[in-house]
Amino acid sequence: MATTAQSVADVCRTARTASRTLARIGASTKDAALHAIADALEERSAEILEANARDMEAGAEAGLSAALLDRLQLTEERVRAIAAGARQVAALEDPVGELIGGGRLANGLELRKVRVPLGVVAIVYEARPNVTIDAAALCLKSGNACVLRGSSSAAHSNAVLAGIAAEAAERAGLPAGSVVLVSGGGREELVELATQEGVVDLIIPRGGEGLKAALKGVATVPVIYAASGNCHVYVDHSADLDRALAIAVNAKTHRPGVCNAAETLLVHAGVAADFVPRALTALRDAGVELRVDARTRSIAGPDLSQDVVEAAAEDWDTEFLALVLAVGVVDSLEEAIEHINAHGSGHSEAIVTADLDAARAFEHGVDAACVYVNASTRFTDGAEFGMGAEIGNSTQKLHARGPIGLRELCTLKYVVTGDGHVRG
Amino acid sequence: MATTAQSVADVCRTARTASRTLARIGASTKDAALHAIADALEERSAEILEANARDMEAGAEAGLSAALLDRLQLTEERVRAIAAGARQVAALEDPVGELIGGGRLANGLELRKVRVPLGVVAIVYEARPNVTIDAAALCLKSGNACVLRGSSSAAHSNAVLAGIAAEAAERAGLPAGSVVLVSGGGREELVELATQEGVVDLIIPRGGEGLKAALKGVATVPVIYAASGNCHVYVDHSADLDRALAIAVNAKTHRPGVCNAAETLLVHAGVAADFVPRALTALRDAGVELRVDARTRSIAGPDLSQDVVEAAAEDWDTEFLALVLAVGVVDSLEEAIEHINAHGSGHSEAIVTADLDAARAFEHGVDAACVYVNASTRFTDGAEFGMGAEIGNSTQKLHARGPIGLRELCTLKYVVTGDGHVRG
Repeated sequence: MATTAQSVADVCRTARTASRTLARIGASTKDAALHAIADALEERSAEILEANARDMEAGAEAGLSAALLDRLQLTEERVRAIAAGARQVAALEDPVGELIGGGRLANGLELRKVRVPLGVVAIVYEARPNVTIDAAALCLKSGNACVLRGSSSAAHSNAVLAGIAAEAAERAGLPAGSVVLVSGGGREELVELATQEGVVDLIIPRGGEGLKAALKGVATVPVIYAASGNCHVYVDHSADLDRALAIAVNAKTHRPGVCNAAETLLVHAGVAADFVPRALTALRDAGVELRVDARTRSIAGPDLSQDVVEAAAEDWDTEFLALVLAVGVVDSLEEAIEHINAHGSGHSEAIVTADLDAARAFEHGVDAACVYVNASTRFTDGAEFGMGAEIGNSTQKLHARGPIGLRELCTLKYVVTGDGHVRG
Repeated sequence: MATTAQSVADVCRTARTASRTLARIGASTKDAALHAIADALEERSAEILEANARDMEAGAEAGLSAALLDRLQLTEERVRAIAAGARQVAALEDPVGELIGGGRLANGLELRKVRVPLGVVAIVYEARPNVTIDAAALCLKSGNACVLRGSSSAAHSNAVLAGIAAEAAERAGLPAGSVVLVSGGGREELVELATQEGVVDLIIPRGGEGLKAALKGVATVPVIYAASGNCHVYVDHSADLDRALAIAVNAKTHRPGVCNAAETLLVHAGVAADFVPRALTALRDAGVELRVDARTRSIAGPDLSQDVVEAAAEDWDTEFLALVLAVGVVDSLEEAIEHINAHGSGHSEAIVTADLDAARAFEHGVDAACVYVNASTRFTDGAEFGMGAEIGNSTQKLHARGPIGLRELCTLKYVVTGDGHVRG
C-alpha cells in the first residue's frame, strides 16, 4: 500500500475503481477476506506493536494526556480483540442484495428495490488505531471500498494496520484499493478528502466536535455527523419509583462518558416529593454532581441542600459526558416533552411510566432517534439493537437515524425488468 | 395567513410548532384536510384565476417567454387538475407509523423501528404555481409541516393557493402553521430559509441548475438535489433489435424534455452493422439530431452521413433535454458499463439484451438509481413505480434514491419498551 507518493485524490480514485468490483462480490469472498485480515493481524502482532510503540513514544514526548495515550495504546490483547471484531463482522448477514421492496407493476414490468453498497466510504477518526480495522471491516462487509484517514498521533500504527488489512484483503480476492489509507493528518488532506464529490460517496467522522466543525465548513461529499447526546430521563406521575430510580442511576452512571448517557432528569411534580429526595441521595452517593432547578432544590430539603447546586441556563443544553446531572421538576408530561424537544439533541430519551397513554404520548411527541419506555437510555447501540457492530450513531434525520450499521452503509437501486416495455 | 410582516425565520418556527402536533395526527384527519383543500380550490377558483391573471400580466410585461407564461398560467381545468391531485394524495397509504422492523431483543426489550415524519419540509420552486398544492399535499399526508417558497413571478397565484390550503387545512383540524408561504422571492430569503438548521429538516429544490447552485453554496439545512438525468440505452450483442429500436426511440422521443429521457445510445459492435442504420434512420425520421462517434458514422454509410454530426467530447456528458442524441459503438458490455459510470448521472440506465448474464452484469455494474432491462428509461416515476405522487427524483445515494414519494419524506424512530431494563 504505497500511498505516500499519492495525492488524496489519487488514493480516493483507487478506491473508486475498487468499489466497482467490490459491489459485485458475494458474501463468501468478503467474509473470507475479513477472516484473512483477522488472521494476519494476529500473525503480525509484533509488527503492529512495534509501530504502536513508536506512536506511544512520540505521544509521550508530545505530552499527550494519560487518557489519550491509553486510547492510542495497543497490546497483544487489544490486537486479538480487534481481530475478533473483524470475525464478528464476517458473521453478520450481508446487507448487499437484500430485496427491500418491489413487485409486478400494472403494466407488467417487474420492479425490485435492492440494497446495494454506497461505493466509497471514508472514515475520518482520531487517536484510537482500532478504528482502522473496525471501519474497514464494516465497509468491506457492506461492499464498500474504504478510505481511512486517522490522526497523525497514530500514524505508524494506522499505516501498519491498514497495510495488513489491504494485503490480506487482496490476497483473499478483493480488488486492490478496497482499503486505502490517506497519509498526512493535516487540514489540507482533510479538505481534499472532503471535496472528493463523485469519488467518495460518504464521509463519517469519528471524533470530537472540532473534527465535525472542520468538515462542516468545507465538505461537498455527504457527511453523517454523529451529533452529541443530550439525553433525558423523565419520571412520570404514574412511574414505579423503584424502576425510575434504577433507570435514572443507570442512565447517568453506568458509563457517563458516552453519548447515550443521561444528562438531565425531569420529574413530574406529582411524584417529586417522594422521588426527588431518594433519587438525589442515590445519585449523590454514586458520585454525581447535581445541578437542580429551584423546585427540585426546595423539595430536596435541608439534608441534601449542600449536595446540589443551582442549574445554570446552559446546563439544560450541555452534554456533560461526566458524573454531572441536571435535575428539574415539570408540571406535566407535555412540559417534559416540550423541554426535551427544546433542549435535547434527538439521541435517546426515556420515560418511566405505568400509564399507557403517557407512554404513547411520549413516543409520538418526542423527536429523537431512540425513545425508551421503562428502560435506560444506555441501550442505544448497534449491537444491543441486534444490528451487529456500528460505525457510529446518527442524530440526523436523513438516511441513517440511530445506530449506523451495515444497512446504513448501503444505498438502494431499482432494477426494472420488462420484455420490450415502452411508455405510451 | 399573514406572512408578510414575518421574517423567514418566524414563518419557519410557526411550521416547526405545527409539526409537533401534525406528527401525532392520524390519517383520517390528514385525508379530510386534503379533501377540504381540494374542495376549497374548486370553490374559490375565481379568486385563484384572478390572482393568476395579475401574475400573467406582470409576466407578459416583463417579457417572459411563451413557454414560461404557459407554465405560469392557470385555467379552470388546471385548477380542477390540481384539486384532483390533492385527492389522489389523500387516497395513498399513510406512511407514518409504518413498522419497518423490530422484534424482541435478547434481553427482553421490545424494539420497534417506526416510520415518522421528518418535521418541517421546505419546497423551493420556480414558475409553476401548481407545485404549491402538490408539495403541500405530499408534505401534509406524510405528517410534515410545509414551508413553500415559490418564485416572484407567481407570487400572487402562490399566495392565494397557499392561503386557501392553509385555511382549509386548519378548518379540517390540522394545526395552524401546517402550510406556510415564505413571501419575497429574493436571494436573501432563500439564504435565510436554507440556514434554518434545527427548524427546517429538509429542503427540496424543484427548479433549474441555477436554483440548485444557489442552495449548494449556502445551505446548512439538508437538501435533496434532483440531479440531471444523463440517461443511456445500451443495445447488447444479444438484443432483440426490434425491441431495441422501440426502446431507443421511446426513451429519446416520448418526452425529450424530462430527466428520464435518454441522451446517449450505445451499441455493441457485434450488432452495430445491423442496428445502427435502422436506428439512425428511425431516430432521424422522428426529428432527432444525431451526434455520433467515428465508428457509428462509418457504419451509418453514405445515405445517413448528411444526417449525423460528429459528437464532441462534451456531448457524452450533456443532458440535452431536447431531440438530440449521442450515439456510440462499444466493443463489449464492460465498455458500455464503464462509459455509463463515467458519463452518466446515476438516474436511469437501460440495457436491451436477451442474455441473462449480460442483464445481471449490467444490473450489478451500473451505478444508478434505476436500471432497466428491456424497458425504456421513461418509466422512472413515482406513479409508474406504484409509489403514488412524487415530489422529485433523487440521484443522490443517501436517504432517497429514485422517486421521492411519501416514504422518502419521512425518517424513522426506534421505540424501545422495557419493564425497568437497565444496562449491566
